[in-house]
Amino acid sequence: MNEALKPKRIFLGKKLSNKNLEGQLLPKFIALPIFSSDPLSSVAYGPQELLMILTLGGVSFLAFAPGIAAVVVLLLTVIVLSYRKIIEAYPSGGGDYEVAKKNIGDRAALIVASALLLDYVMTVAVSIASGTDNVISAFPELSPYRVEIAVGFLIALCAVNLRGVRESGTAFAIPTYLFIGSVLLMIGTGVFKLISGAALVAPSAGYQVAVENTDAAHALSVGGPFQAAVILLLLRAFASGSAALTGIEAIANGVPAFRAPKVKNAQITMVLMGITAVTMFIGIVTLALLSNVHYSENPCDLKGWVECATAPQLSVMAQIGSAVFGANSILFYVIQAGTALVLLLAANTAFNGFPLLTSVLAKDGFAPKALLTRGDRLVYSNGMLSLTLVALGMLLIFEANVTRLIQLYILGVFTSFTIGQIGMLRHWRRGLAKGSITPRAARSGLAINGLGAFLTGSVLIIVTITKFTHGAWMVFVIMPILYWIMFNTGKYYKAVKREIALDADTKFGSTGDYAVVLMDQLNKPQLKALDYALSSRHTELDAVHIAVDPERARAFAREWKKYGMEVPLKIIESPYREFSEPLIKFLEDHRDRNGSERIAVYLPKFVVGAWWEHFFHNHRSNRLRKRLLYVRGVMVTLVPWKLESALKVDLFSRRPLPGDARRGSVRPMRRTHKPGANVVQTVKPEDIHYEV
Amino acid sequence: MNEALKPKRIFLGKKLSNKNLEGQLLPKFIALPIFSSDPLSSVAYGPQELLMILTLGGVSFLAFAPGIAAVVVLLLTVIVLSYRKIIEAYPSGGGDYEVAKKNIGDRAALIVASALLLDYVMTVAVSIASGTDNVISAFPELSPYRVEIAVGFLIALCAVNLRGVRESGTAFAIPTYLFIGSVLLMIGTGVFKLISGAALVAPSAGYQVAVENTDAAHALSVGGPFQAAVILLLLRAFASGSAALTGIEAIANGVPAFRAPKVKNAQITMVLMGITAVTMFIGIVTLALLSNVHYSENPCDLKGWVECATAPQLSVMAQIGSAVFGANSILFYVIQAGTALVLLLAANTAFNGFPLLTSVLAKDGFAPKALLTRGDRLVYSNGMLSLTLVALGMLLIFEANVTRLIQLYILGVFTSFTIGQIGMLRHWRRGLAKGSITPRAARSGLAINGLGAFLTGSVLIIVTITKFTHGAWMVFVIMPILYWIMFNTGKYYKAVKREIALDADTKFGSTGDYAVVLMDQLNKPQLKALDYALSSRHTELDAVHIAVDPERARAFAREWKKYGMEVPLKIIESPYREFSEPLIKFLEDHRDRNGSERIAVYLPKFVVGAWWEHFFHNHRSNRLRKRLLYVRGVMVTLVPWKLESALKVDLFSRRPLPGDARRGSVRPMRRTHKPGANVVQTVKPEDIHYEV
Repeated sequence: MNEALKPKRIFLGKKLSNKNLEGQLLPKFIALPIFSSDPLSSVAYGPQELLMILTLGGVSFLAFAPGIAAVVVLLLTVIVLSYRKIIEAYPSGGGDYEVAKKNIGDRAALIVASALLLDYVMTVAVSIASGTDNVISAFPELSPYRVEIAVGFLIALCAVNLRGVRESGTAFAIPTYLFIGSVLLMIGTGVFKLISGAALVAPSAGYQVAVENTDAAHALSVGGPFQAAVILLLLRAFASGSAALTGIEAIANGVPAFRAPKVKNAQITMVLMGITAVTMFIGIVTLALLSNVHYSENPCDLKGWVECATAPQLSVMAQIGSAVFGANSILFYVIQAGTALVLLLAANTAFNGFPLLTSVLAKDGFAPKALLTRGDRLVYSNGMLSLTLVALGMLLIFEANVTRLIQLYILGVFTSFTIGQIGMLRHWRRGLAKGSITPRAARSGLAINGLGAFLTGSVLIIVTITKFTHGAWMVFVIMPILYWIMFNTGKYYKAVKREIALDADTKFGSTGDYAVVLMDQLNKPQLKALDYALSSRHTELDAVHIAVDPERARAFAREWKKYGMEVPLKIIESPYREFSEPLIKFLEDHRDRNGSERIAVYLPKFVVGAWWEHFFHNHRSNRLRKRLLYVRGVMVTLVPWKLESALKVDLFSRRPLPGDARRGSVRPMRRTHKPGANVVQTVKPEDIHYEV
Repeated sequence: MNEALKPKRIFLGKKLSNKNLEGQLLPKFIALPIFSSDPLSSVAYGPQELLMILTLGGVSFLAFAPGIAAVVVLLLTVIVLSYRKIIEAYPSGGGDYEVAKKNIGDRAALIVASALLLDYVMTVAVSIASGTDNVISAFPELSPYRVEIAVGFLIALCAVNLRGVRESGTAFAIPTYLFIGSVLLMIGTGVFKLISGAALVAPSAGYQVAVENTDAAHALSVGGPFQAAVILLLLRAFASGSAALTGIEAIANGVPAFRAPKVKNAQITMVLMGITAVTMFIGIVTLALLSNVHYSENPCDLKGWVECATAPQLSVMAQIGSAVFGANSILFYVIQAGTALVLLLAANTAFNGFPLLTSVLAKDGFAPKALLTRGDRLVYSNGMLSLTLVALGMLLIFEANVTRLIQLYILGVFTSFTIGQIGMLRHWRRGLAKGSITPRAARSGLAINGLGAFLTGSVLIIVTITKFTHGAWMVFVIMPILYWIMFNTGKYYKAVKREIALDADTKFGSTGDYAVVLMDQLNKPQLKALDYALSSRHTELDAVHIAVDPERARAFAREWKKYGMEVPLKIIESPYREFSEPLIKFLEDHRDRNGSERIAVYLPKFVVGAWWEHFFHNHRSNRLRKRLLYVRGVMVTLVPWKLESALKVDLFSRRPLPGDARRGSVRPMRRTHKPGANVVQTVKPEDIHYEV
């Protein structure tokens, strides 16, 4: 088949040479959408979760929203500044993982790695679920197909990414800019309308919120000093709003994908991203509050909305779009399309980050080496496929529900943030001590990363306390498992490396050289194996027949003598019709009697052209090969015979075969191996000295 | 692990030596239950189907039942006599298949084989479905679990049979005798009660049969000459009643399993079986009619039975048992248990017959050779597993419904009957012509088998006509497919045999001898491979490195020179990070330049102790091995290195390893292969002469 027409090539595009690696690097204006779609898109669900939690206590709690939003914005600013420092100090793209590894140690690094791995998976799951939400907000009739749509998006993303970074970058830049542009336009239009005196009315503005049995609402209504229940609810709202902070680290992990000067470009991109995110976050919270958006965990808590049980709840983004541009205006659909697309791009961030991280982990020996192999298109295909599979599981288990998925999300992010910042504090102190960093730079670093460590650590504690019972406990199950796996993988690879390393007393060479050729018939494939074995000039060579069928064994021995084969034939009895057991015992016995000899076992093997031919041949040689490889001193030589018969049995059209097992041209068996070698000897089980 | 404690051994029992084969042969009193459970048990559904079809025309049609039953009994007698002849003429157990093959030809034999294969599958499916029916008749609350119960029975049967013929024989004799005894007791008791003037009343005696829209009923009611509709219904009832004739051929196919004198014993068993079957068939039809059993295809056609939609219909056997012994008497449950058990034994018949037939087909080259391998317990395990799988499919597709399954059943039986009898006619005529058979014996044979051929052929036509639209058409799809597969399998094996056979101009020996060792690191496993390759004394040997990562290739070349390896190293560039492609091109190019040389490729390979270790190693050598086996003149040598590191990484308890790749004891690389051989050469893609 033409290489270009193979399904794999159509799906992936043409193979890329290593030389293309540099060409795949990203300029800033492409890197921004690729790495910033995650933090930018989180304004689509961050504010929504914040408002939803506050609403649990009643509409009056929405008055706290601006305050909480301000804390989130402050936090975002500090984190952006902290990561600028990380980019500068560790431009190799290891991000928090590398910072922790170099400054604290392997164990801390593995905690970061497990947090990040989970985080990437959740980025994919949450972003796709939220994107699906926004599609459904625009087309409510799609509501019954939520999970199917989400899975479809996931598969599409995987496909695009297997094609490689560069092309996805170009394809992904436009929607992100569309999203940024349309959200900023929406905020601008909304603010302008408000200033000009027009009222913004969200579709849910008329619904009342039913407050039942909420301690916080009661505590607030009785007034008096703030009580624990109120504080807890506010902290929980803050923790949920922090979802808007996810993904900021992506740029720090992606520095190697930037064009030179990498550090400077990455830093500039980081700041641009921060400014955009802050603007959008503030704008959306403000417009949501002023247009009276009501969003509830359980839609039927919204009194006055009679269809709550049948119609999907409109996302906060959709409600603001509707309030600003009108319910079915073109711009409303533009906003929804932009939001949905940018959320998919956010999921895409993880498709860049996850394989990069797993490849770093593989290089450090903490993950299977297969994750280190770049595919045809220079991407780490195995990592991408793993990510897709796990995210698929998450979407199916949690039915693509954003609120349920998000519980597993933020904890990992802030674990990684906090450990990364603490690592940076050590970095600055060490640098200061060694004198490799100027006191001025170190002080600035210590201040920024110290503030970062303090704030992110505090958020980590708040999130853990407020979300633990709502699903975050699962993180405390998953992360230790990931940690355990990676830790032991590390141990395993180190042990393997020690074992196979050359050392001073490594010695080679065997004292004996024995070969056997497994035969049961005098036909071309088996004589070819014998011929190949003879031409390798072993010291001692036997043909060996396992007498699974005694009748057949006798017939074979007769044939052997009749044809005057000049090689000794050993017939090994097998009363239980087993194949490998008697052979292995025979070989072990031979080796025991002859010292540490090397034994070559020649297996004639059919290779076939069409898949269905496998049904017609016993796969004895495969099973035998696997067993023999465990026998001391044995090497296994497969001598193939390519069957062409299938060509003549014209059942289906057949693909052409790669190569052809061509026959030789000299007389058979003429190189006498040993004088008087035409001996047939039967080996009975009792003749073999069993090892007990 | 202790051999006796392995799951396989617990499930199957201890391994049996070939010497045990004779001991597994069956005495008559064990052979009768094994081979007769099928024809005997078919009285459990044969009469029921007969009455059910008649009832389609109305209760008045039941008056035809005795007449039709008489024809069925006549047919049964003729078939038994015909098969006595087959046993005598062909005692090797090939049955109809062998008769057709020897007397008519391969194509007729393959038609018989496809009929029989389908037939065995249907025996299993119908018998299990009917057995399940009778279990449900005793315990109606099990009705919702029909399919589950049937599948459970199937799996249990498969397990028992994998343990081997003899043990299942002993275990199965008791229930068959229990069935025969209890049915004869029931018939005797019923007849005695009737003679003594008591009335037998079946549970369904009070239900009326609603006759709607049946041409036959109308035709009968208007009187006058018999019309087509009436005749068609009677023929259809006859065709359905013929289900009682299935399985008679089992004894003829099972002759080799009898103890000597095989022929005589088999013939006696055949006659015993015939007498028992006839007695039971007549008894059951009589009692069913006299106790007014009403049985309908659609239970709700039975007027007066209000629960028809919720409760299962009682089988005819259960109704008679209930009428004779009382509804919940102990003997009623004994009859039901006996019936259910004997139906399972009938299914078991196929577990004896099917693997025997497939092994014969495999021996003749019409089925995959794997079916010819006897397992640990001397049974043809692969055949049994195939049968189980296909029967499972049938049970699931037809929801274990007897009436739906039975449509696919009888056609195959009578196809095989008819062709077998026709073959026997040829057998007698040939024998007569050659003089090997006395005229007297030939005349008797011609008469009996001629009558048999005529009657079974007629039934075949009747069954085809009356059942085609009710599901029998599927047989005309399945049988040709089976035929096609077996026919082409035969062609395939013949082609392979021709291809690999030695012939006068078969010549061996290659002009050149080249070896390469694939390496990418100087470590123990790879140097072991190099060492083994060197000790095979090839004419020319190179170490070869595929430069998937150019950086690493350079490092390896430096190491090679540094360690003063006395073997030439060839570095093959691979700009697309492919592994096998460049190597194959290199080898093909080398062979093109050096004539028909033999190339040994040495692949160092890790073998691991625990299943999970596979995740940690690239399976490159596996993929490479498969590709290389298709390259002309190449043989592949696997040099294993057994990793012991996993033992040290104490994750799980580990099974002990079979053997140990022990290290040698001489200095490394001291047998200089060629003077001045420490050369590193880089092979670029453009250096390789591509075949276009």
